[in-house]
Order: sequence, then C-alpha cells, then structure tokens
Amino acid sequence: MTTAPWRDPALPAAARVDDLLSRMTLEEKTAQLYGVWVGAATDGDGVAPHQHDMTIDYDWDELITHGLGQLTRPFGTAPVDPALGAQALARAQRRITEAGRFGIPAVAHEECLAGFTAWRATAYPVPLAWGASFDPELVADMARRIGRDLRSVGVHQGLAPVLDVVRDPRWGRVEETIGEDPYLVGTIGAAYVRGLESAGIVATLKHFAGYAASAGARNLAPVRAGVREFADVTLPPFEMALREGGARSVMAAYTETDGVPASADPGLLTGILREEWGFTGTVVADYFGVGFLETLHRVAGSPAEAAHAALAAGIDVELPTLKCYGKPLLEAVRAGEVPQDLIDRAARRVLLQKCELGLLDEDWTPEPAGPVELDSAANRALARRLAEESVVLLDNPDGLLPLAPDTRIAVVGPRAADALAMLGCYSFPSHVLPHHPEVPTGIEIPTVLQALRDELPDAKVTFAEGCGVSDPDTAGFEEAVARAAEADVCVAVLGDRAGLFGRGTSGEGCDTSDLGLPGVQGALLDALVATGVPVVLVLLTGRPYALGRWQGRLAAVVQAFFPGEEGGPAVAGVLSGRVNPSGRLPVSVPRVPGGQPWTYLQPPLGLAGEVSNLDPTPLYAFGHGRSYTTFAWEDVAGTEPGIGTDGSYDLSLTVRNTGDRAGAEVVQLYLHDPVASVTRPDVRLVGYRRVELAPGEAARVTFRFHADLSAFTDRSGRRVVEPGDLELRLAASSADVRHTARLTLTGPLRVLGPDRRLRCETEVARPT
Amino acid sequence: MTTAPWRDPALPAAARVDDLLSRMTLEEKTAQLYGVWVGAATDGDGVAPHQHDMTIDYDWDELITHGLGQLTRPFGTAPVDPALGAQALARAQRRITEAGRFGIPAVAHEECLAGFTAWRATAYPVPLAWGASFDPELVADMARRIGRDLRSVGVHQGLAPVLDVVRDPRWGRVEETIGEDPYLVGTIGAAYVRGLESAGIVATLKHFAGYAASAGARNLAPVRAGVREFADVTLPPFEMALREGGARSVMAAYTETDGVPASADPGLLTGILREEWGFTGTVVADYFGVGFLETLHRVAGSPAEAAHAALAAGIDVELPTLKCYGKPLLEAVRAGEVPQDLIDRAARRVLLQKCELGLLDEDWTPEPAGPVELDSAANRALARRLAEESVVLLDNPDGLLPLAPDTRIAVVGPRAADALAMLGCYSFPSHVLPHHPEVPTGIEIPTVLQALRDELPDAKVTFAEGCGVSDPDTAGFEEAVARAAEADVCVAVLGDRAGLFGRGTSGEGCDTSDLGLPGVQGALLDALVATGVPVVLVLLTGRPYALGRWQGRLAAVVQAFFPGEEGGPAVAGVLSGRVNPSGRLPVSVPRVPGGQPWTYLQPPLGLAGEVSNLDPTPLYAFGHGRSYTTFAWEDVAGTEPGIGTDGSYDLSLTVRNTGDRAGAEVVQLYLHDPVASVTRPDVRLVGYRRVELAPGEAARVTFRFHADLSAFTDRSGRRVVEPGDLELRLAASSADVRHTARLTLTGPLRVLGPDRRLRCETEVARPT
Repeated sequence: MTTAPWRDPALPAAARVDDLLSRMTLEEKTAQLYGVWVGAATDGDGVAPHQHDMTIDYDWDELITHGLGQLTRPFGTAPVDPALGAQALARAQRRITEAGRFGIPAVAHEECLAGFTAWRATAYPVPLAWGASFDPELVADMARRIGRDLRSVGVHQGLAPVLDVVRDPRWGRVEETIGEDPYLVGTIGAAYVRGLESAGIVATLKHFAGYAASAGARNLAPVRAGVREFADVTLPPFEMALREGGARSVMAAYTETDGVPASADPGLLTGILREEWGFTGTVVADYFGVGFLETLHRVAGSPAEAAHAALAAGIDVELPTLKCYGKPLLEAVRAGEVPQDLIDRAARRVLLQKCELGLLDEDWTPEPAGPVELDSAANRALARRLAEESVVLLDNPDGLLPLAPDTRIAVVGPRAADALAMLGCYSFPSHVLPHHPEVPTGIEIPTVLQALRDELPDAKVTFAEGCGVSDPDTAGFEEAVARAAEADVCVAVLGDRAGLFGRGTSGEGCDTSDLGLPGVQGALLDALVATGVPVVLVLLTGRPYALGRWQGRLAAVVQAFFPGEEGGPAVAGVLSGRVNPSGRLPVSVPRVPGGQPWTYLQPPLGLAGEVSNLDPTPLYAFGHGRSYTTFAWEDVAGTEPGIGTDGSYDLSLTVRNTGDRAGAEVVQLYLHDPVASVTRPDVRLVGYRRVELAPGEAARVTFRFHADLSAFTDRSGRRVVEPGDLELRLAASSADVRHTARLTLTGPLRVLGPDRRLRCETEVARPT
Repeated sequence: MTTAPWRDPALPAAARVDDLLSRMTLEEKTAQLYGVWVGAATDGDGVAPHQHDMTIDYDWDELITHGLGQLTRPFGTAPVDPALGAQALARAQRRITEAGRFGIPAVAHEECLAGFTAWRATAYPVPLAWGASFDPELVADMARRIGRDLRSVGVHQGLAPVLDVVRDPRWGRVEETIGEDPYLVGTIGAAYVRGLESAGIVATLKHFAGYAASAGARNLAPVRAGVREFADVTLPPFEMALREGGARSVMAAYTETDGVPASADPGLLTGILREEWGFTGTVVADYFGVGFLETLHRVAGSPAEAAHAALAAGIDVELPTLKCYGKPLLEAVRAGEVPQDLIDRAARRVLLQKCELGLLDEDWTPEPAGPVELDSAANRALARRLAEESVVLLDNPDGLLPLAPDTRIAVVGPRAADALAMLGCYSFPSHVLPHHPEVPTGIEIPTVLQALRDELPDAKVTFAEGCGVSDPDTAGFEEAVARAAEADVCVAVLGDRAGLFGRGTSGEGCDTSDLGLPGVQGALLDALVATGVPVVLVLLTGRPYALGRWQGRLAAVVQAFFPGEEGGPAVAGVLSGRVNPSGRLPVSVPRVPGGQPWTYLQPPLGLAGEVSNLDPTPLYAFGHGRSYTTFAWEDVAGTEPGIGTDGSYDLSLTVRNTGDRAGAEVVQLYLHDPVASVTRPDVRLVGYRRVELAPGEAARVTFRFHADLSAFTDRSGRRVVEPGDLELRLAASSADVRHTARLTLTGPLRVLGPDRRLRCETEVARPT
C-alpha cells in the first residue's frame, strides 16, 4: 500500500495540504474550521459570557466522524490533575483520529496569559508586571517555560499574548495588557511570542484589534478611533510580534471600531494582516465572536450570514463552538450563498498549520512525552525574578524604606493575607476555582503578610484586615487603626481582587466607573494616615489607581501589578531591602479618580492647559520608578545630528551606580516631534534599556535611533518619515528628562513599506 | 464723475466684487481677512484664553488705512450702555471707511448664544433648554428677536448657533449645545439660524466640527472619532442648518480629530463644506484658532505657516487678531511662499458677503436706525414662554407637585436665591460682569425663591442657602436641615454656577471629571432627605448630573437647564401648577457619576450587557419628561409597510389629553435598524412633534418618514439606504416605546447625494 502524498513528510507542506484538500468532502473541510469546548459545563455557568446561549447541541460521536479543527481548554475549564488531564486529552485525540477518514487530530489550545491556565501550573506575574520590568529577555524566558509546559501535556496553541495598548485604565482587562505605550507593548509582547514559539507552541496575538479603547472602558463597548490612532497606536505591537516574534496565529477582537466589527473586517484581517504584513498563519475567532456578529453587532441576520461575514473577512476558525461554522455554514455553501473558495482558503491555512505541527504525520502520537510538572522549582525561580523586577517603588521621600529589621510593623488591609491578591483574572485559581470552592489553589502562594514575617524574623508584625476589597463595611477600621497606632510603621496592603464578569474589581468584565480605590479602602487609608504613624502603601492591583488624595501624606508607596505566585516574597523583599526595586510604571498613575480616558500619549491639546479646569497631568508619570541606590547619567554623546530621512543616529551615555547597593536603572528614550503635518504625541517611547549595575559600576549604553522610528501615518494614510527637526530625550520617565539631543532630518519625505524598522537597537558596554 | 462698477447696486454682486478686487492691493485684500478685538482690555485679563499672549501690537490708525475685515465684540467685552455702544461702533465704522481708499466698513460680529451678549440685553434660556422644549418654531421666534436687536445697534454677524452634538456630558460647554441627538440639534439649530438670518444677521455655525467629543471631556482636548461617527453624528446638524436655515458663515473648531486640526483641514472646510454641500459664505476662525495651529497643534512652524495652512484649508477670516493673517501672511505671499490665489479666494468671499450686507453701497451708513431697546417686554414674554416649555419634570411619583397654595415650604440650596443661577456662561452677566463687580446685571432676573414667593403668596416660604455651589464648607447644613424639618415640603434648588475657564462649574473651560453634583450639594441633599420631609429637587444646571443615589427618595425632581432671565417664574410656575411642565430631556440623566462618556446613541455593544459590570443605562432616558395631565396615544395607522429604498411611509396617531389640565405632549419617532452592513445605534430620533392640547382635546399627528432618513455611512464612506427591514417606534422617550411599526425597504441599495432628505415632515390635524 502506497502512502498518500499528504502523509509524506518529504513533500512540501503546501503540496501535502493540497493533496489532502482534494480528498476531503465539504463537510470534512468545514469541520477543520471550528473548535469545541470540551470542558464546558452543560449548565453554562462558565468562564466566558454568552457561553450558555451560544452553545448548541451536537452529538460528539457523530461530529468527529468529519474531523475537528480545535479542542478548547482541556485544562483550563475545571480543576484536573495535569497528568490525568494530559491522558484525557490524548484519549480525546485518539477518538478524533480514529473516527475520521484521515485521522487528523485537533489543535488543542489553552489560555496562557500569565502562565498556563491549568491547575497546579505556575502563576507568573501578569503582563502589566512584565511591562513594569522593562525586561524583554526575562519575559522571553518565562514564555519559553510556559510553552514547554503546554507542550508537555499535549497543547499546541496558546491564546496569548494580549497586545492591546491601554487607552483607558478603567477597563477591567488592563491587567492583561503590557501597558499604555505601543513600543513597550510591542517589544515585551514580541519577546513573549519568541519564547512561546521557541517551545513549538503557536502563539496567538490578541485582540486584533482595538479592544482596549472601548468607550467608557466598558468591556466590549464600541471603539471610537480614527484610522491614524488605529495605525499608530493600536496596530504596531501586532506588527512587531509577527515580524520579530514569529507568531503563527491571531485572534480577532470582539469589538467594533467606528461601526465595523473587527471580526467582519476584511480590511483588517486580510488587507493589513495578510496582504500588507504577509501573515500566513491562522486567524481564530474570540470565543463566540462569530455568532456575536448576529447577536451583539447586528451586521448579520443569521448564523449563516455571520459565518459568511467572518469567513470572508478572514477568520479561519470559529472558537469554541460550531454555531456558525458548523451546519449553518455548510448549508449556506451548499445553497450557493457562500463561495466554496472561502472554505478552501481557511481549511488550507488550518491544515498547513497542522502539517507544520506534525499533526498530519503518520507517526504522530497524542501520548505525553514525559512526566508532567507544571510548577517546577525553575519555574518558580523565574516567577520570583520577574516579580522582583516588576515591583515599582513610586515614592520613598524620607527613605523610610527599606524597613529596619527590628521594626514594629502593623500590616493592614484586605490584600495582605489573601493568596489570591497575587493573581490576575486569567490565573487558574481566579479564573476557574471560584466554581470549585472545595479545591485548593494547587500552587503555593505566600501572601505579603507571610512573606514579610519570613523576610523580617526580628520584626514584630501584627495584622488587621481593616475591610474587604469591595464591600462597604467599615467595622474593621477600628482594629486596623489600633494596630497601626501601636506600631512604628503601618504597611497598608490594598488593591484589587481579580475575577471574571463582576466577581472581581479587576479582570475581564470587571470595569470600573472611576479610578478611586475599590470599596472603602481609600477611607481605610485615610484612617491609617490620620494615626500619624508612617504609612507605607503597598498596592496589589490590576490597574493604576488615583493617589492624588494622599500626595505628601504617605511614607512610601509600592506598586505591584498582580505579581504572581512569588509576588509575596518579591514585595516583602522590596520592603526589607533584600530586593532593590527596579520596576518602572507601564501606565500613568493619575491624581484624581475621574477625568478618564487619558494616557501619556497625548498631542499638545491633550496636555494640561489653561483652557480646561481639568489638569490630566498624572501624579506618577509613565516610566517612573525609584531605587534604593542612585545613578549618574554621564558623558552623553551623539553622532552627527544632521541625518537623512533614511539615516540613523547613535546616542550614548554612561550610567553609573553612585550608591552602595546593586540596582538596575532603566534608561528610556523618548521622541518629541516639534512640527509635523498631523499632530503628534508630545513624547513617545522609542527605546529603552534596563541596566543592572553593582555599586560603583558603570556601563555605556548606546541607542541606535533610525529615522524610521519617527514615522507616523499622514493625512493620506501613508506611513511617512518627514524631514525636519526632532528631539530625542534621554529620560528616567516620560516626565523626567535628563538630556535632550536635537536632530535634523534632511532629504525627501519617505514613504515606508512593511520593511520599516520597528525597533531602536541598544548596546551596553561595560569597562573590562 | 462715474461711479465705479463695484459701487453699482444694479450690477451682480460677483461682478462688483471682481471689479473691486482688481483695484485692491495685496495689503488691502489681506486686510479684509482679519478682525480686531476692539473692546479687548490691554491687560489681557479677558474673556477668552490665550488672548493675552496671542494679541499683538499694532497701530490702529495705520492699520485701518488698508481697510479691515471684522470688528470683534463691540458690545460683549465690557459693560456699555447699548445706545452709547451703537454710537461708538458707528464712530469706529466711520473711521474705518474714511481711512481706506474704498471706504468699506468692517463686519461687526457679536456673540449671541442665548441672546445678544450685551449689557441690558435679554438673557434667553440656553440652547440645552431649547433642546428640552422640542419647539423649533419658538426658537426661531427667539432668534428673530435676537437678530433684530443685533441689527438695531449695527452688528452684522452673530457667532451662533453651537451645533456640537453632546458626546460627553462632562464637557463644560454642554450648556451651549442643544443636546445629544443630531436630529434634535439639527432641527432646533436650523430654526435658530432661520430666525437670525430672517433679521438680516449672518448666522455662524460652530464649531465645525467635532469639538464636543474632546477626549475626557477636557475643553480643547483631541477628538477621537472615526469617519463614520463624524459623518453620521457630528456633521448632520451643520448640513441641516445650512440647507434649511441658510446660514452664511461657519466657524472652524479649535480641536483636532484623529490628528488633523479642523482649522487646517481642507477636506472638511473645503471638500465637505463647499464642494459637497455647496456652501458659498465665509469660514471664520475661532478666536486665535489660526495661531493655535502653531502653538497648540504644532502642525505649523511659524505664524506664516499657520496662516498658510488655515487659508489653504478654507478659513477666510482670522478672528479676532491679525497675528497670522496680518504681516506674516503678507510677507509670505510677497516671498512667494503662499499663492496669491488663496488671498483672492478668501477676499472674494468676504467682499461678496459685505456686498450682500449692503456694505459696499454708497448710501451705507453706520448710524443706528432707531431707538435701542434690547430687553423689551416682548422679548421677556418670549424668554418666559421658552423657559416654561423647557422645564422638565423628571419625576413626581406621588403627585406632590403641584404644591398646594398654603404649604409651608423650605427653600434650600445655593441656587435658590442667586439671579446668576438662571444664566449660562455666554450670558453677559456671567461672561463679562465678573470683571466688573460694581456693575449691576442690567436686566431683571427673579430668582426661584422670589418667584415662588410671588407665585404662592399664601405659602409660608423660608430659606436657607445650605452651602455654596462648589466650596467644601458644610457649616450651613444645620440651618438648612432645621428649615426643612419645620416645613411641609423642602424645595432644594441645586445646580451649577456658569462661568468661564474655571470660574464656574459649567461653561467654557469648566469641565468636570465626573457627573456628581458640584461641591457638597449632594451631601446637602442627603441631609435634607434624611429629615423625612418630602424633598422636591430643582436643578438649575448646564449639564445632566447623576441622580441614581437619590432614586426613590425624592418627592419630585424638576430639571431646568439655565432657563434665562424669566427662568425663576417659569420654575416657580411649574412648582405651583400654573405651568404644566412639557420639557423633554435633550440629554440622558445617568445613574452614577463615573463611567462616561455615554450618550443614548449606542450600537448594541454600547448598551448594558452581562459582559461588563458597568451598566450605562441612564436613570432618565433621552426624551423623558412628565406632565401634570395624561395623554392617550390612539388609533395608530400606517400606510403600506413595503416601500422602496426611495419610498416613504406615513405613520399617524391620535394624541388625546385625557386629564383635566391643558398640556403639551411631545410625540417622538425613533428608528431601529435590525441588521445593517455596519453597526447602527439601537435607536435614534428621526422625528418629533410637540402638541399642545386642552383638556379632552385630541389631535391627529402624522409623520412622513422617507427612506432617506434611514441612511448611514457605509464602509466605503458612501451615504446609503440599504434594503431590508426597519422599525419605526412611536415613543414618549427613547426608552418608552408606545407603538412599533415594521417596514420593509425593497429595491436596490441607494447611494445618496447632497439632495438627500434630512427631515421627517409632520402634520397635526385637529377635529374642527
């Protein structure tokens, strides 16, 4: 018996897939275009909205006779021992391969936003903490570990990273983003992708595109944005993660922008993504997003019309249902309402990916390769290091921190003694375990209180919760104030509870109408400050909160963004001084709770002025963060400041640790464009470099700025480099400029293509 | 001596202007393109921002030898007796005509947002109150009166109406707008223009376009909007006011949209305005707006570049300065940097308008025609009627209102006894008199307290202020609570203080970070409610405020939007029952202070859903308002429901006053489009009719809905009517649907041109 060409690993993938497609029925091809949520509870009380009314009945045994595109969340739906889960997944794959004519397994996908969303898997810091680390290499290491863990249990595709750029910090999913600057999001996001893909896992860029700008920060609300904002703020991280990270999948966003749902936008999913950027992977729907074209957007009159619109736009795979891409699509094709070409186009992309993943190979086996261990010591060490790098010391005016070893410390607040205070909403414990209250978290998660006691064994540490995260009860204030009054210092650990759809104060569907601290925590902080005992505010949050009310009244402010399972020791290490804080703000911290939306990427009109009585200037600027040591920025030198519109310019400086502790400085490079044909952000990040320095050590940092990095979208929609003057600002935050270099770009206006440079290369040289 | 052709009234205006232009020097032409703020104080402590640093030195006598385009605010800058002001203006005009070679007077312009902004002139209700009246004819009458008064003192052009559609109620200028719906803004705005132009005054549509959507509601902040939102929400009122109202001038907005400042946007100021809509009048800059292209937008590197950009875009007249269009423009033209054609184009438009105004005629005289009386009894009567029609009774659950004649009434609150509580920020007393504290308001403005005492002479009325509008002092609460506790009913009169740039809680530059009642007024209301005495809340505001906190706890809620000099008696008349309230909300009243922006024009994703824990559903919907009588909606009948995409459909109903008081019902027609190629607002207003009915009286109201009214901007930017199903909803508010008619549009998709129908004609027939 001859092996069919599609089974022949010696042939090119395209030839194999063409052969396979020629053998498949319409029904078999269509079956490759949807996924099924294998773990979903039938009562619909689930981890995603609209799951109940969007899930349809089907007969599994009948279904898989045609094959199956994807299996949804075999691990992230209910607590299952990972090794048993891997065996269950393998069983399901065997059934699929045995049921169909071709024996093609499904792609198994899982969430892995901040670690594999599985029981007993490492919960790393959330993406907003990665942004705070300004350390792409460490994020790549983490993603590589996540990828290996996914692979070890039979998962092929990870639904991460989130590359949405924060446009309104009230949005519940801010914790899932990397920050409010596209360059930071793009560089860190690309690093994550590189790491995940290096482990053989298909990374999925989401949400493509615009989601973060939902009006009023209400989850899924329409996005109001023009084409330039979209091109210059929303899209660049995706472009970078595709080009530099090599992501093989993209997830279409739920939202609409200016009336056009992303999931039905061929200009976005095909025009920009494939024709302009050359993407060849798969585009998958966000969960139930195809059906939403009918039910939530009303741009389609039926499931079949929704399927047609999504497929024509460029969504290859409906997840995690077959509501539209199942029978309705099949019947519409048979009725001649949907061209079969569209089916072939999508099926080819899916099968090409399966081919690349080895799923068409005869020797493919679903069995796990080795022992399953999803929270190894190496994982935990990396989670610890990333957490430590991401803690931001916002203020320490009188040097109260680090705390003396024998201090009397009153630890107060609803986040001090709750392990879940460390985790974001896509962590398994926050995402799934609320439905299983009897199940333990499955991983060790020291709280700040525990960690501080461990960290400072000679300190006298007392504790009072004070209040809940969001409930209005103030009965606990009295005890909290009493504990504070007896202490040398009060450490107030406040913040968010991550959860889904109203179960949290941060997380998907947990949007806030203003940026006041949740519940009565602000009032608790007032009461603690009123004692006169120095108060160190520690925030464990998923978004920035307005802190202007306490300006000048706190002894220190430490901001951590859900720092993961090792976050407690990381925060405690900063408080004790074992860790020298080096995080920098990936989002601005505002003064007042209202007045949103605002991010630092403002053209001149968006900055404070006498024309409004509202002053949006943040209390702590994007990029801000303090250290226990001091750094000198010396010997700034640039190359010839007159360059062509296709030229580049090197800017170097020496950073010296002038204190007596090791520490890390984050040198940031901002661009200011004095005059342009359209309005430009006053400053925007175009480069950064994190530099670790021993006491007294110095390093020479060089930024290689290329004129392409000044490009923007002009009135005609082209991406151009305009001749004229530019300012490059070496800065310790977007508001703390240490040195300005003035350039002049000469020569013609340049129109850039998809080969434009996206990154400012940096070099660090240390005296030998 | 032969009369020159340009002086010959028998020749067509174009021929006269061509002749004149052929005789003028470059300097003389350029002089027609700017205005000078004649009344501006030299110390720059003025009524507009940036006045100080944008005003430049010039020699008036030298300047006017070249002529002068415009004179700015001869009445609205400082308190001057109107008759004396008219003489002073005439003197200035004589000097101008005598100084130049051609003797061409300047166009004198003034603000007239809610009445002529002059001392002793009638202060009418603000535009938001016009919106609440749903009575375009009455607004036209008012504008005609305003126009006659302007004309009586030598003013040619009025800088009104504001046609910005509310996109974020936190914006300070909401009081200057007509509401949050483009159809309401367009119909009421067109009526205002028709009235003003009928008196021979050039109406100036502003702000063209986008201003109201400034990000975060900060005055002048950038606008984030896509082309469809711009075309379908922002622009339609301007189109209607040009086509139906015949406005002869348009003012460019300060703001930028998606990176392009309106003042430098040829696509807007020339493409849409002139080429598409056929506008032939003048485009004027907002004050100092040309210079802002350099200083606030940074799309120009110098005043000359700013002048070039603005002139090329289509701004014909710089106001109220010659900073850019003066010497810098002149020199740039002489240097060949700006084409002289652009000067000729703008000068021709200015001179054509002057020709139409008779300013080129030999017999033109600057002397006022007759006696000057800017606050006549007839004006006041109209101001009263409009105020009465605009008061909105939001709630009266137990029928506490109208008040019994012999009630013990505690009037409480910082807005009860302040005449300025009635006026918006562009009223002369609020706009100018803060700089002249020794000058009386110049018009009689009864307060709510005075008017209520007059209205109910047998009532026992006590008063306590309780607190200030915005200061934090709560010392007055005790007395206020005491007065309330002694009374049968407490009337709490709360709200805004209108002012400019931080001097108010509403008005230009007085934006708010959230929609909580200003200062401690919310706490005062809590304290009053806690007494157990029924509280009637009367709001005198410039924007809606969140009232969810008091839902179900108030005896009645009366909302007035700065109702003008006769607003006190109007409100008191509603409280006493002399006036049966008939106003309807032109803006939604939200539940909570945060969560903005939101207006009722939401596509499905913008409505409440399980996907966010924020529920944006307003407490009181757009279009809501109660009456002291009841109305039955009967005998709804429609014509054939299958119409072509160019067809029309008549929908009729009988409205019957079933109570025992005369009253007015506002029948509203909303469109719901079940499926479209882009997302559509769930409902939007497409017609309305205010119907006054005696007790027992009935009237037959017919709406003539044309398919053009279902048009929207599709993905390719065309304005189209799509075939398919539609729902027409007869409703008492956007949330109170009384009858739904289902239509089907058949035939081809239609692409509409500038002749599209904009209005739903209505007819009212009464049994004879």
